[in-house]
Amino acid sequence: MDAATLELVKVLGQENVHTSYETLLCYSYDATPDLPVRLPEVVVTPGSTSQVIDVVKIARRYKMPVYPRGAGTNLSGGCVPVHGGIVLSTIKMNKIPEIDPDNLVATVQPGVIIQDLNNAAQPHGLMYPPDPGTVNTATMGGSVAECSGGLRGLKYGVTKHYVMGLEVVLADGRAVFFGGKTVKNVTGYDMVRLFTGSEGTLGIITQIIVRLIPIPEARSSMLAVYADLRDAGNTIRDIIRHKVIPATMEIMDQTTIRAVEGYARVGLPTAARAVLLIEVDGMPEVVQREEQIVLQVIKQNNGQVTLAQNTQERDKLWAARRAALPALAQLKPTTILEDATVPRSKITDMLLAVEEIARKYNLTIGTFGHAGDGNLHPTILTDSRNQEEMPRVHKAVEEIFQKALALGGTLSGEHGIGLAKARFMINELGPNGLDVMASIKKALDPDGLLNPGKIFPPSIYNEGYKYG
Amino acid sequence: MDAATLELVKVLGQENVHTSYETLLCYSYDATPDLPVRLPEVVVTPGSTSQVIDVVKIARRYKMPVYPRGAGTNLSGGCVPVHGGIVLSTIKMNKIPEIDPDNLVATVQPGVIIQDLNNAAQPHGLMYPPDPGTVNTATMGGSVAECSGGLRGLKYGVTKHYVMGLEVVLADGRAVFFGGKTVKNVTGYDMVRLFTGSEGTLGIITQIIVRLIPIPEARSSMLAVYADLRDAGNTIRDIIRHKVIPATMEIMDQTTIRAVEGYARVGLPTAARAVLLIEVDGMPEVVQREEQIVLQVIKQNNGQVTLAQNTQERDKLWAARRAALPALAQLKPTTILEDATVPRSKITDMLLAVEEIARKYNLTIGTFGHAGDGNLHPTILTDSRNQEEMPRVHKAVEEIFQKALALGGTLSGEHGIGLAKARFMINELGPNGLDVMASIKKALDPDGLLNPGKIFPPSIYNEGYKYG
Repeated sequence: MDAATLELVKVLGQENVHTSYETLLCYSYDATPDLPVRLPEVVVTPGSTSQVIDVVKIARRYKMPVYPRGAGTNLSGGCVPVHGGIVLSTIKMNKIPEIDPDNLVATVQPGVIIQDLNNAAQPHGLMYPPDPGTVNTATMGGSVAECSGGLRGLKYGVTKHYVMGLEVVLADGRAVFFGGKTVKNVTGYDMVRLFTGSEGTLGIITQIIVRLIPIPEARSSMLAVYADLRDAGNTIRDIIRHKVIPATMEIMDQTTIRAVEGYARVGLPTAARAVLLIEVDGMPEVVQREEQIVLQVIKQNNGQVTLAQNTQERDKLWAARRAALPALAQLKPTTILEDATVPRSKITDMLLAVEEIARKYNLTIGTFGHAGDGNLHPTILTDSRNQEEMPRVHKAVEEIFQKALALGGTLSGEHGIGLAKARFMINELGPNGLDVMASIKKALDPDGLLNPGKIFPPSIYNEGYKYG
Repeated sequence: MDAATLELVKVLGQENVHTSYETLLCYSYDATPDLPVRLPEVVVTPGSTSQVIDVVKIARRYKMPVYPRGAGTNLSGGCVPVHGGIVLSTIKMNKIPEIDPDNLVATVQPGVIIQDLNNAAQPHGLMYPPDPGTVNTATMGGSVAECSGGLRGLKYGVTKHYVMGLEVVLADGRAVFFGGKTVKNVTGYDMVRLFTGSEGTLGIITQIIVRLIPIPEARSSMLAVYADLRDAGNTIRDIIRHKVIPATMEIMDQTTIRAVEGYARVGLPTAARAVLLIEVDGMPEVVQREEQIVLQVIKQNNGQVTLAQNTQERDKLWAARRAALPALAQLKPTTILEDATVPRSKITDMLLAVEEIARKYNLTIGTFGHAGDGNLHPTILTDSRNQEEMPRVHKAVEEIFQKALALGGTLSGEHGIGLAKARFMINELGPNGLDVMASIKKALDPDGLLNPGKIFPPSIYNEGYKYG
């Protein structure tokens, strides 16, 4: 055992310092495919803020990078230890110190599973709206660090709209707290937002205050089937024009529909060019009225509609949507899931462009995603061992990003930049925008100790970070 | 005319460079009372981003600070030119390039008046929810820089919840753009939020993309009168417990009620200890149901309630609320308006504490504000020439801040820190938190060129800023 590991054992106890090959191998991955693998030197599982501080101080002394990690469900390589060092898992910091129904807030430790927060809030009639696909496994700390999105973004927003206060351990080992339980707070810069979505590169989140909302009393789900992609796009536009903001408005293209039907046999129409899955929620009177408007808009745009008549039928519809990624993933060994996001009005253009790119590079790409907020997931089905196909895959990915940016969109709507998209940052931000972000990183973590290799392309790191 | 002014004239034209004594005097103030006065050297009114860049480059060369300014309505000394230099007014950048109803966003220049944006959105059935008291005079640039709040914070949030994209001119003269038209965007750090509320100390905002929402179809307003402050506090709590989130929930204490009645004769009960003004909005069916719940909760908590039966009655109620500040202000020559904000559940404690502080220092303090989001405005009525009273006023202000922080609140809910509260920052943030914010300032504006003297206490500036 080396000197750093011995010091870690001294402050955390043997049971919280892991160096077996099996453990190190597990923590060299996250849920992202097709990334380089490098084992960390050690994995630690601190149980408190003060233990996190101890770890960071030891890391500083031994010049070892620290990679904060929740459940590792992210899809951009956000927690892979590319430069070696210490993986810091928040798995043991999983308490919910407080649900405060009068102020509509909850205080949680970073290792709490998102669904566990919902389960704790539910008896108070409250919920935490951000709902990434991994809501049953992802941690609050990870989802705040990545600013997770999910199906409810259109009406309810995403993680950043719910984080109100953060305790963070900085790269120099100091713990700071920003924000609190008040919706209004303009005391200096909005540091809560700066740390939210910073992917563990500016500090390690050790406590979180989030806003909760009352659980909607009723909801209604509909499936709309289209022979023409444009009709689906116009439906999305027209629903918003009628001033209805659905809780969710999801789309699946033909490739995805066929994959889901082959996988789960839920009765989706495999001849359709696209389906929309729409849910409205709120008070029963609202749901009833909005449901009628949505049904009418679907019909006006040549959609064939099915209204879920009960909970079973509703659950079946959403099971189909949730099956999209696993269904696509089983078709080929490697699944490259992208996250290109465009303004809502450009959804049809983006879907058509992805089909065109699939044809051009002779690839299978299934697209599904959150049409209501313009957040699409073009999913390339391939095999990372296929040396003939992979160069075409990488070109297609690049072209998808270019198209999203050309349509006024963004590289990543909800999956983060991490390792996977760092090299594309300059395309969206330009050298000046990227430089501004890098100056923030350098101000808060001058040695590049925290989660090195993420967000910024290597060229930025080479200009002065120790652990680049 | 000195060399710097000559250069400014060359790039902006004579008509956009102002050096008359009368103009300089006007721009040495903003709406904040009791602050030091120092004339700027020059006032400029650029008309485009490239002219803003020109001004910043000239300012750099001549080592002159730049103070960005909208309408100057802020209440924390956010735009007073305390260290001399150039006041940059955005008054001529007042276009609305786009209202985009399909994406529910608008693009505006910084000099656009908030209400003008609402007027432009209204034909599309859309609105921009943040509504500071100065909605008819304040600019979008100023309200984004200060992160304005207003009456609708509880249900709709504040400015930061609506800003989606920003073009900013940095201290070194580079223009950068962050964000865009998509709700979901996790491409690197949330720079949009960092600049929002940064009070012009990190960059000069030159273009803004904001989110719009559909205008609620119906609303209902109620006035509730209480003989006991605690009953008013319990009403606020119980409305939330019934899962009703009113659009606004305002409170006025006895001092404010009497001032308003003396000023406007709207029929408020001057014997009451407190009144609540509550408005619910949304679809008619929702409004009707929520109105009934609120009426019941008010009665259960010993409130006497009046329901506005028509638009005239509703307007009269809100005119009374809007009269609070002018009514208080006319009682004494100097009005010190504070902005202490506490978690909603602590509203009663805070109101009682302010009454106690008023007694202790023998001062007249009227308190009103946004009870629903815990944002109170204790208003000290005094005379800045009264050398016997002013020391007691300053002690009372300090004690109000201490109490707000002790209750888990914040120094400023919506007015900003500016010059007025810079010295209290350390009380909320501690030395580490303040140091983190200062490191951001130093990273983006190492010479302290932009709006010096604001947010940070002088001790921080003395550690290396040129224009401290």
